[in-house]
Amino acid sequence: MSRPAGAALDPAIVAKVRGIVDAMPVMRLTGARLTEIEPGRVVMDLPFNRDLTQQHGFHHAGITAMLGDTAGGCAAATLMALDQNVLTVEFKINLMAPARGDRFRGVAEVTRAGRTLTVVDVTVNALAGAREKPIARLLQTCIAVPDGAAG
Amino acid sequence: MSRPAGAALDPAIVAKVRGIVDAMPVMRLTGARLTEIEPGRVVMDLPFNRDLTQQHGFHHAGITAMLGDTAGGCAAATLMALDQNVLTVEFKINLMAPARGDRFRGVAEVTRAGRTLTVVDVTVNALAGAREKPIARLLQTCIAVPDGAAG
Amino acid sequence: MSRPAGAALDPAIVAKVRGIVDAMPVMRLTGARLTEIEPGRVVMDLPFNRDLTQQHGFHHAGITAMLGDTAGGCAAATLMALDQNVLTVEFKINLMAPARGDRFRGVAEVTRAGRTLTVVDVTVNALAGAREKPIARLLQTCIAVPDGAAG
Amino acid sequence: MSRPAGAALDPAIVAKVRGIVDAMPVMRLTGARLTEIEPGRVVMDLPFNRDLTQQHGFHHAGITAMLGDTAGGCAAATLMALDQNVLTVEFKINLMAPARGDRFRGVAEVTRAGRTLTVVDVTVNALAGAREKPIARLLQTCIAVPDGAAG
Repeated sequence: MSRPAGAALDPAIVAKVRGIVDAMPVMRLTGARLTEIEPGRVVMDLPFNRDLTQQHGFHHAGITAMLGDTAGGCAAATLMALDQNVLTVEFKINLMAPARGDRFRGVAEVTRAGRTLTVVDVTVNALAGAREKPIARLLQTCIAVPDGAAG
Repeated sequence: MSRPAGAALDPAIVAKVRGIVDAMPVMRLTGARLTEIEPGRVVMDLPFNRDLTQQHGFHHAGITAMLGDTAGGCAAATLMALDQNVLTVEFKINLMAPARGDRFRGVAEVTRAGRTLTVVDVTVNALAGAREKPIARLLQTCIAVPDGAAG
Repeated sequence: MSRPAGAALDPAIVAKVRGIVDAMPVMRLTGARLTEIEPGRVVMDLPFNRDLTQQHGFHHAGITAMLGDTAGGCAAATLMALDQNVLTVEFKINLMAPARGDRFRGVAEVTRAGRTLTVVDVTVNALAGAREKPIARLLQTCIAVPDGAAG
Repeated sequence: MSRPAGAALDPAIVAKVRGIVDAMPVMRLTGARLTEIEPGRVVMDLPFNRDLTQQHGFHHAGITAMLGDTAGGCAAATLMALDQNVLTVEFKINLMAPARGDRFRGVAEVTRAGRTLTVVDVTVNALAGAREKPIARLLQTCIAVPDGAAG
């Protein structure tokens, strides 16, 4: 990642990344939203919702994967040109603890930003009261495609 | 996988695996359901639903991951003892094409069934009319835990 | 994969893929060699060698990974243009059994061949006498780069 | 990871972890050696060796994977009981840059230490003169098995 963490991000890029999330019906369904955006790093929060749980009453692994994957894609998008779109090529997720909590947080940081491919590290934490605990780790590859080429 | 493909499955195991899926609120939310169960292999279908889409109008990668992960966990559960529960340790997913179609199908086959760990291969296909096309591949590791130890 | 399995492969592509392997000093060190090449599929064999073992006397996981990764890259290369070079973007490997045997065999098949990215499924088998047993599974992503751009 | 980073490590554990590496013929072949060991973290170095290269003159991805996998397994072993042995269940590796340099360094840190499974984050860096640059990231799952059960 070439740009220093914490550097100011072009407002047009912020708008673009927020626009990606706002344009996703599944984000409205689940209630996930971006809470921090900086170059190469985003944070995304998702409240606990019983409709998203598996048989033990915790969020389904797929929901945790969706949170982590979306945060990762947004982090990658912060380092792409305005006319580029981000797609996930693949990711790997380790589910380290049950998704039990009041709220879940995906923290995504770009590890390697290339012209075509971007590698992102993501941690998903569960928040319960004042406690924040990592429940999943993702290692993700994204690709930049020209706008309009995503389908 | 020690048992031959196509062999009859103990009805109690079938009931257990169906019970896992029926007990998941997120399966009701998304509409996914098991369509085939045999020893070491399950098929799970999910209709297209606009609420589950990303910014381009296709199912979100997290939804495809959830379908594949659930199918994989159920395939692993068919080879576990009745008093064992299945948890996903980790999975890796390659998203090979947009999740565009009328219906999506997760086809999961156990590659290696161990006492503790099970490795599952999953393909997710998109169905549009008569056409069925692979859109994702997963390689997943599941663990057997005693009932009640899942949290 | 668009070309039918078993189709004849352009001799220039066969020569290119063989050339990749012949040009790798680490293949000479380990003794791995291509035994089958067809469009989208290659087989690569590696004899057991005590110098490649870990503390239990089996081939090290890294050696199994190298065999699988090389077979996968070669399978991807069979579907690329003559002036393109193949690089591994990433892979995931499940080590399902100890690498115990007289010989190891990587069987790689392209699952999705794109213009830029290729997804490959690889199984590594251990051969002991007449017995062949899967010991590892890989799911790999490769990228096509113009010749000379690999460094 | 429950123990604080930098805490003193039981000398018997240090001896066990060093013993694992010393007992691997492939470590002697490649010249890899442990340079730091603390609870939940190890560093392992590997000098450049032309015999380990692929067709472009860089270390083969499999060699980078072996370095990262071995460092990760050793990091996991630092948190296991003396009579437990470590096996790699699976890992995923992103190859972010060519393995070009005088020396390579695997830095492995345990992210989640469980009774059975341990998740490890590994970065492999290339060192050239005074420069150290990340070339690969791994996310690895290890399992603790009783001594003697590894085969």
